[in-house]
Amino acid sequence: MTTLSGKKVAFVATDGYEDSELTEPWRAVTDAGAEAVMIAPDNGVIEGKKQHRQPVDQISGEADASEFDALVLPGGVVNADHLRMDEASVRFARGFFDAGKPVGVICHGAWLLIEADVVRGRTMTSYPSLRTDLRNADADWVDQEVVVDNGLVSSRRPDDLPAFNAKLIEEIGEGEHPAAS
Amino acid sequence: MTTLSGKKVAFVATDGYEDSELTEPWRAVTDAGAEAVMIAPDNGVIEGKKQHRQPVDQISGEADASEFDALVLPGGVVNADHLRMDEASVRFARGFFDAGKPVGVICHGAWLLIEADVVRGRTMTSYPSLRTDLRNADADWVDQEVVVDNGLVSSRRPDDLPAFNAKLIEEIGEGEHPAAS
Repeated sequence: MTTLSGKKVAFVATDGYEDSELTEPWRAVTDAGAEAVMIAPDNGVIEGKKQHRQPVDQISGEADASEFDALVLPGGVVNADHLRMDEASVRFARGFFDAGKPVGVICHGAWLLIEADVVRGRTMTSYPSLRTDLRNADADWVDQEVVVDNGLVSSRRPDDLPAFNAKLIEEIGEGEHPAAS
Repeated sequence: MTTLSGKKVAFVATDGYEDSELTEPWRAVTDAGAEAVMIAPDNGVIEGKKQHRQPVDQISGEADASEFDALVLPGGVVNADHLRMDEASVRFARGFFDAGKPVGVICHGAWLLIEADVVRGRTMTSYPSLRTDLRNADADWVDQEVVVDNGLVSSRRPDDLPAFNAKLIEEIGEGEHPAAS
């Protein structure tokens, strides 16, 4: 079994996230021994669409990818629509791609990656409503429960979480990948 | 004052629309003498995010742009995210562009136009979260309360509704525009 002991995993979201897409990967990485850190545009507590509440550990504007081993982006249409307008969160996410660090993204979470302009040439999936946006951003969009492309793990929806979490743990265990160019 | 007597205006939305972005343009076009028709993916009643309810007059799969003089697309992130996955609604919207008929789109409504691939080379605005998606779809995105480009009227948010409605009425009054190529 993979152990992620000593690894620090950033979760970035804001209000309106898809509850299980935060809570289940969170449990998966912490059960594997990693430390999970909740990062959001503002201090306080964020709330999922089904009312799960998660305290914010650090704000995006003070977070630096160099202090983390991996990034996870939950979905939820309202969360993802708002998060992409937060420049600090966009910049923070881009830092993981610049460093070739593992990133997990599910459902609508990929809008942040479109905003960060880091999906060019990457094979990935998402909630189907983002298909055209991702293709227009030059990603190679495919319809699979989980896709792994050089450290980038992506899935479509809550039903895909078991497959998503398994690949996420594996990729975080492997560590940095050479940055795709 | 412009009269739209004898004109038939299609509104397309589904649950989760931004209430005022449906009700205010609806009132503006009907006050000007037009007939407004609610078109949605399914029969019944659709509900806005603030619980306004609107009976559906016709389903997208049975609607044809040739029977209407103009199209209006309200926003609301959940509405727009779902509507773009309904192929009949995408096809219906495309018909207005093919015929050079006036189209009004506000807020998140423009995702349907990205899906229909009709924004290439068009100058327009939207809710700011769609800026990158519209630019990636080759639109010329600008930040203004209302933009008119050859019969395409676009605005950003509910605050822009007075300017949006005024231009919408004007463009519907003018009728078909030569299709942009």
